[in-house]
Amino acid sequence: MATVAAKREISSAENDELSREPKRPKADDKNGEEGGNESEWENVLSTFTTSSVLSDSAREKIMFVHGKIADHDAVVVLEKTPIREDSLAELFRGSKLRLELRNDIYSSYRLQAPPHLNEIKTTVVCPATEKHVKKYKRQESFLVEETSEDYRSITLPYIQEQSLSLQASWVYNILEKKAEADKIVHDDADPEVGFVLLPDLKWDQKQVDDLYLIAIVRQKDIKSLRDLSSEHLPLLQNVFLRGKEAILQRYNLPASKLRVYLHYQPSYYHLHVHFTKLGYDAPGCGVERAHLLSDVIQNLQTDPQFYKSRTLHFPLRADDGLLRRFKEAGRL
Amino acid sequence: MATVAAKREISSAENDELSREPKRPKADDKNGEEGGNESEWENVLSTFTTSSVLSDSAREKIMFVHGKIADHDAVVVLEKTPIREDSLAELFRGSKLRLELRNDIYSSYRLQAPPHLNEIKTTVVCPATEKHVKKYKRQESFLVEETSEDYRSITLPYIQEQSLSLQASWVYNILEKKAEADKIVHDDADPEVGFVLLPDLKWDQKQVDDLYLIAIVRQKDIKSLRDLSSEHLPLLQNVFLRGKEAILQRYNLPASKLRVYLHYQPSYYHLHVHFTKLGYDAPGCGVERAHLLSDVIQNLQTDPQFYKSRTLHFPLRADDGLLRRFKEAGRL
Repeated sequence: MATVAAKREISSAENDELSREPKRPKADDKNGEEGGNESEWENVLSTFTTSSVLSDSAREKIMFVHGKIADHDAVVVLEKTPIREDSLAELFRGSKLRLELRNDIYSSYRLQAPPHLNEIKTTVVCPATEKHVKKYKRQESFLVEETSEDYRSITLPYIQEQSLSLQASWVYNILEKKAEADKIVHDDADPEVGFVLLPDLKWDQKQVDDLYLIAIVRQKDIKSLRDLSSEHLPLLQNVFLRGKEAILQRYNLPASKLRVYLHYQPSYYHLHVHFTKLGYDAPGCGVERAHLLSDVIQNLQTDPQFYKSRTLHFPLRADDGLLRRFKEAGRL
Repeated sequence: MATVAAKREISSAENDELSREPKRPKADDKNGEEGGNESEWENVLSTFTTSSVLSDSAREKIMFVHGKIADHDAVVVLEKTPIREDSLAELFRGSKLRLELRNDIYSSYRLQAPPHLNEIKTTVVCPATEKHVKKYKRQESFLVEETSEDYRSITLPYIQEQSLSLQASWVYNILEKKAEADKIVHDDADPEVGFVLLPDLKWDQKQVDDLYLIAIVRQKDIKSLRDLSSEHLPLLQNVFLRGKEAILQRYNLPASKLRVYLHYQPSYYHLHVHFTKLGYDAPGCGVERAHLLSDVIQNLQTDPQFYKSRTLHFPLRADDGLLRRFKEAGRL
């Protein structure tokens, strides 16, 4: 299933990538709480020399570093640990503070905590292969401006060339109930306005906090937002209405707790709609890639050709073939 | 600066609200780089007693704590700092490591860093009012649908009633260079299309990875997206063009790395535009609240009254007075 997940949903959020690990063996060893090999390993990292930062997130306080330990390639992942409520008293008592700014009732400081209260989770992959390095490497994204003419002359031909590799046979398997049939939350068999609603593979379904479902439409010839016109309004309205109803019934989550949107560019060129929980920072829900279904419907009601004539902006990863085409066309 | 940052703008849906405060005092003091009042303030926090954790994020390594300093109510915001590439060598050399697990080529550790390489950004609000406590407390959000009629009958009267407390005197301080003048990245004095561009207080400016700037327009009577019409196109285009140019010059970041957008609802009702780095998961960049400036411009070019006639969706926190009005009007 992991493959399908990877296919289903890629890019946009660069962090998305960060979490994808090649293969992670299960833990078979737990020791060192009180020392053990500590000193040995202390030496190992103290000789680590950095070649480059593969990726990092200032928001999540995480960094992936490529370098060498002795003669071996290594990847080191550093991630600051969450602040723990049970250590607050000791933290406040035992820290040093340096005032940065004071203004009325507000003041800000740099706090230096006792090291044992402020650890950094450190993972070492050594020796690391080329594959590890590539996996952890951030792919930068670039915001692309696509006019309707760009779509016709650059994007559409690219999609069509890729059609073999992009054809989403797993989508058809779902629509035909050859796969994941047991997961379907709502099934509307109508060939015009019908769709299948099911949990996205990113969602473990253990809590609704990060609820994530996908509605896959039954019509097979709608590649993306760009293909939509007012004739698709009954389909879009049906997905919007019935999708929200089904989620209310199954998960007891009302429409006011949902973010319902399409991606452009999508991960695969068969029209689908994302339903995620409001307040959950779902990968790909950023304004640079997501389009609220309610806005899409309004736009098509006002202008039947809205998405055929519009200039659209979206991020593409550095290694995306479509980005290369935009560059070759002098559009970046 | 962190304090004010917390006020100006915080996270996407729920965290977002954590920061929003009606009134923002101007900075009047900057000191303590090498000590100064350090010891005095050290004592103040060492006597802090925690009443409760108002909210936290394990992903972002941030915590909002309510408690007492002496007899005063106080809110303390703790946020771990991003890992810095320029300190890696010292970090690897100077840290202590405790082995947690070793398995084949993978091993994981708890790393104890020299305190000065692993600081915690700490903001203190003291004395804090009931209002502060409420603001920082985690609140659920609800997606609200606002028709143009809802805006006129519910939102606009609400904004006007709040105008005294919502009036952003700190914005005027910036525009008049009474505060933060040294931080200004671009200043366009034109009364019609002019604006001031400066770093958002959430951004520590130490790395461009989480670049976050705000353009505050000089015109004082534009409350939000809802007030925009085609007459504002020269202003919007000027902010878009000059803002991107200034960021390229100062930070060497091209337009293809920027996400430029407005919020609706905004945190304060004086028109401003957000510039954040593409790929940085900036709080509030979700599709449910952010509107790409490029889309706003296109929409107004097509329909001069677009934002006056449109139904808009946005999240509101459970404790937001505006949400109560929507509920009272039977609109939720």
